[in-house]
Amino acid sequence: MTSILIVYTTLRGNTGKMVEPVAEGIRSEGVEARPMLVEDVTMADMTAADGIIVGSPTRFGGVDWQIKRLFDVVSHEGYPGPLEGKVGGAFTAGSRAGSGAELVLLNAIHVLLNHGMIVQGEPFGPHYGPVALREPTEEVLGYCRSWGARWARLAERLAASRSASGESPSR
Amino acid sequence: MTSILIVYTTLRGNTGKMVEPVAEGIRSEGVEARPMLVEDVTMADMTAADGIIVGSPTRFGGVDWQIKRLFDVVSHEGYPGPLEGKVGGAFTAGSRAGSGAELVLLNAIHVLLNHGMIVQGEPFGPHYGPVALREPTEEVLGYCRSWGARWARLAERLAASRSASGESPSR
Amino acid sequence: MTSILIVYTTLRGNTGKMVEPVAEGIRSEGVEARPMLVEDVTMADMTAADGIIVGSPTRFGGVDWQIKRLFDVVSHEGYPGPLEGKVGGAFTAGSRAGSGAELVLLNAIHVLLNHGMIVQGEPFGPHYGPVALREPTEEVLGYCRSWGARWARLAERLAASRSASGESPSR
Amino acid sequence: MTSILIVYTTLRGNTGKMVEPVAEGIRSEGVEARPMLVEDVTMADMTAADGIIVGSPTRFGGVDWQIKRLFDVVSHEGYPGPLEGKVGGAFTAGSRAGSGAELVLLNAIHVLLNHGMIVQGEPFGPHYGPVALREPTEEVLGYCRSWGARWARLAERLAASRSASGESPSR
Repeated sequence: MTSILIVYTTLRGNTGKMVEPVAEGIRSEGVEARPMLVEDVTMADMTAADGIIVGSPTRFGGVDWQIKRLFDVVSHEGYPGPLEGKVGGAFTAGSRAGSGAELVLLNAIHVLLNHGMIVQGEPFGPHYGPVALREPTEEVLGYCRSWGARWARLAERLAASRSASGESPSR
Repeated sequence: MTSILIVYTTLRGNTGKMVEPVAEGIRSEGVEARPMLVEDVTMADMTAADGIIVGSPTRFGGVDWQIKRLFDVVSHEGYPGPLEGKVGGAFTAGSRAGSGAELVLLNAIHVLLNHGMIVQGEPFGPHYGPVALREPTEEVLGYCRSWGARWARLAERLAASRSASGESPSR
Repeated sequence: MTSILIVYTTLRGNTGKMVEPVAEGIRSEGVEARPMLVEDVTMADMTAADGIIVGSPTRFGGVDWQIKRLFDVVSHEGYPGPLEGKVGGAFTAGSRAGSGAELVLLNAIHVLLNHGMIVQGEPFGPHYGPVALREPTEEVLGYCRSWGARWARLAERLAASRSASGESPSR
Repeated sequence: MTSILIVYTTLRGNTGKMVEPVAEGIRSEGVEARPMLVEDVTMADMTAADGIIVGSPTRFGGVDWQIKRLFDVVSHEGYPGPLEGKVGGAFTAGSRAGSGAELVLLNAIHVLLNHGMIVQGEPFGPHYGPVALREPTEEVLGYCRSWGARWARLAERLAASRSASGESPSR
């Protein structure tokens, strides 16, 4: 079964409130969603997943240091890379417009791409992932659901094409 | 037939020298490659392609203004977005380490994601796309080929999964 | 007299509404503010100013192409660089949280730094410059004023220290 | 006496080799340079300095997590912010062109700006700070020296203008 890991941490609880709606969206497409606090995630959790979504509070122009630590210590021995070909995305809660929320998403995306992962943007909603300004509104929570579903569909499509072609996930 | 458009412009010729190797890599996987100078590209060329790769010289921390203009004027009428679900990537030639080459790739990737496109990184080679420092070396040209092939395979897989699921490209 | 050029363009008028408050803030510190539409700005306007502030609508993950064109064609003949040592900043109006507004500010800042300019962030307000989501609110307009004043003070301090040390602006 | 703190960590030793040349450049202008390993730096070291320069290995599209942790836990109680108005910059050693070295510099700059610090680019050398690809060459080490001197001069100018105007560093 296709499975997406949601690695998150929260500062005042707002990012935490976005986790379950994202998970619901993923499950609505028949894909497994596994939310885990960043301090509990092991390398085995990362490699077992078909996709990894990062939930980080908005922290001084980048992801929370605990998130960065997790991706810094991923072992890179052997080909393909352990995270290569997985889908990846990010969501965040900041304080207000200009608080650096988008930079957190981009910093996360840069890290995920660096590991060889696959990222998709969104032309009409928030382009780089869900953003709450303080307490997530109903609109933001609803977007978290449709965004989660979007990732689940992409992960499913990539898994299907992989089996069809006999291709390894890393290609 | 799956087809990838290569939109490019060159300043001193170095970015231009990377175009044909990228195209060769794409074709080596049985995918059509269409290199076009940015000033010749129409909206119809963009929407017809399954993928769009940007080749831009390293210009002051971002893509050349002509590249940006092309993506600024994409019409956004109707759903899904005209470029949504296409694969996208970028390559560049800069002058030396720290010249801003990586920023050009990232600026391009940010623009492509904003349009709803799908981007993949690379864990072992240049992470965000091919980079030449001045004249592209044989190593860089070789990487352009394998990188082009990588995009062709991703475009093929997404096209196959689309037909299998009856899904529209934008999902 | 110390002078700051405000180079701007607007799409639906929202970025345009931020120009005058920024200019007022600059003038409140006894510094000249010169707002100009991007299409009217010449190289001489750029080099004559002690600081350059960019106002751009939020356009697909980066500054409007006309802004980029202006900075792409700055002549780089002779040392020091023509914009080196000037202060620089950016403001923007986007549509909503996650619309790419912060990326516009960062793209602008990357371009300004590439030209050797001096940029300051802000720890408590919007960190990278004023951001309006659609129509600028009174709070945003007020922030534009205090932010403009902040830049004027920095430009004044740098001008004063330059004369005191007999140093060229580019150092 | 004006003083610049160099906060660094190194992975294979290459970033470490850039520290002393940067410090030499700073001292050549009569400014104190204090290199410290990231794990030894306290909040008091940060607030006492007139400038903070970050040396980080190139780590998956951003600064090393230990660097990020240091800036994540800066206390923000009281106005002005504890790092506001200080000068800041970054240097890094990556593996090769496209390895993410520039992203490390930008990630660092985004963090520094977020804290209200002042950053300057460079029009002719590496635009965003010194970059070594593997072992730093003599050219890179020489650039580290001139870049360090550049920061020392900027810190001196800002310190001078501050005393002249009776202005607090944060303004």
